[in-house]
Amino acid sequence: MCSDYACPVSEASGSRAERKERTRRAILDATLELCEDAPLAALSLRQVAKQVGIVPTAFYRHFESIEQLGLALVEESFVSLRSMMRALRANATADFANLIDVSIATMVEHVREQEMHYAFIARERFAGPTAVRGAIDTNLVRFVDELATDLARIPVLTPWSTDDLRTLSDLIVTAFVALAERLLATSPGSSAERILTDAARTQVRMLIIGARQWNSSR
Amino acid sequence: MCSDYACPVSEASGSRAERKERTRRAILDATLELCEDAPLAALSLRQVAKQVGIVPTAFYRHFESIEQLGLALVEESFVSLRSMMRALRANATADFANLIDVSIATMVEHVREQEMHYAFIARERFAGPTAVRGAIDTNLVRFVDELATDLARIPVLTPWSTDDLRTLSDLIVTAFVALAERLLATSPGSSAERILTDAARTQVRMLIIGARQWNSSR
Repeated sequence: MCSDYACPVSEASGSRAERKERTRRAILDATLELCEDAPLAALSLRQVAKQVGIVPTAFYRHFESIEQLGLALVEESFVSLRSMMRALRANATADFANLIDVSIATMVEHVREQEMHYAFIARERFAGPTAVRGAIDTNLVRFVDELATDLARIPVLTPWSTDDLRTLSDLIVTAFVALAERLLATSPGSSAERILTDAARTQVRMLIIGARQWNSSR
Repeated sequence: MCSDYACPVSEASGSRAERKERTRRAILDATLELCEDAPLAALSLRQVAKQVGIVPTAFYRHFESIEQLGLALVEESFVSLRSMMRALRANATADFANLIDVSIATMVEHVREQEMHYAFIARERFAGPTAVRGAIDTNLVRFVDELATDLARIPVLTPWSTDDLRTLSDLIVTAFVALAERLLATSPGSSAERILTDAARTQVRMLIIGARQWNSSR
């Protein structure tokens, strides 16, 4: 049993698959913690293994490299962000103001639930290994594309060109990225948090109100 | 003479002040280069001194610490960015479309002239030492405030509340930051650069057109 471990992560109960998943989770969490003090690129596999309490060779049963581990962290953040987006998509016919409020509230909730993931992404987005930076970028592009598709269904935006919809979507995503990054510097429920979310709400409203005036054919 | 140097940075000509300034510049440039491969926080004073060709103790004649060196790099980028803003301010009465085009062209030029500085700021903005992150943030806030003051002079925005002007200004600056960060991944004069700048221009126009519709008193 337990051959992965120098000392066990947790009691070696459950099926083999459950234990494997538990170790994988422990590796991901340990990396998020270690990355608070050092960039991913500076982490060694040995350091991560030590933090988790597994022998270094056991690391490879879960990830090929530190970079693969970084990619897994990026993917799991965006997978849950996309599921948040799907929930919002179901409300795409609701009025603008409400949709914006719900989007921002959901965003704040997601950042609070995954603060370490967001901090990791904020740091690695420009400072990380090429593959990790690429994965963050790809996910943000997908996010922009999905939002553009949603925006296309909003009656006032139906006549817009695909390019203009994507450009609008891109600025909304940019505003959301900035909001997420800034939320990390505030405490949950603080007045700073409220000021940030109020400003983000106003910004997206300004954009949508502007959109009504935008002549897509110019 | 030359006692700073293990081996000279350049010929020890010019006045003492000129030589001191040359060494300071060499330290800043060496740091920008070293930071392409490692975060500022991971640099040692010894490493920087070696790259410049000065003895480690000579470093202290110019900077108290690696962090102070990082702060100097942030400051010099924003000083020239602000001088760019002052030049634009002189045109604040010109028509929107032209003002936006000129702003974006100037931004592209500034990024191209200072690519290493921009890359440094993009990386250190969330991954850097607390003081460096704080300095970047303070400079961006100042940028937002200055732009808000400029926007207040635009006739259609004169009736806006200070809060709304700041919120609009913040989103424009956010769009410019995103543009600058993305330009770093493109080559000068490339079609990717053109696509990015066209999109940024459209985004700021959408915002300004939206601003005309925005009822500040809501």
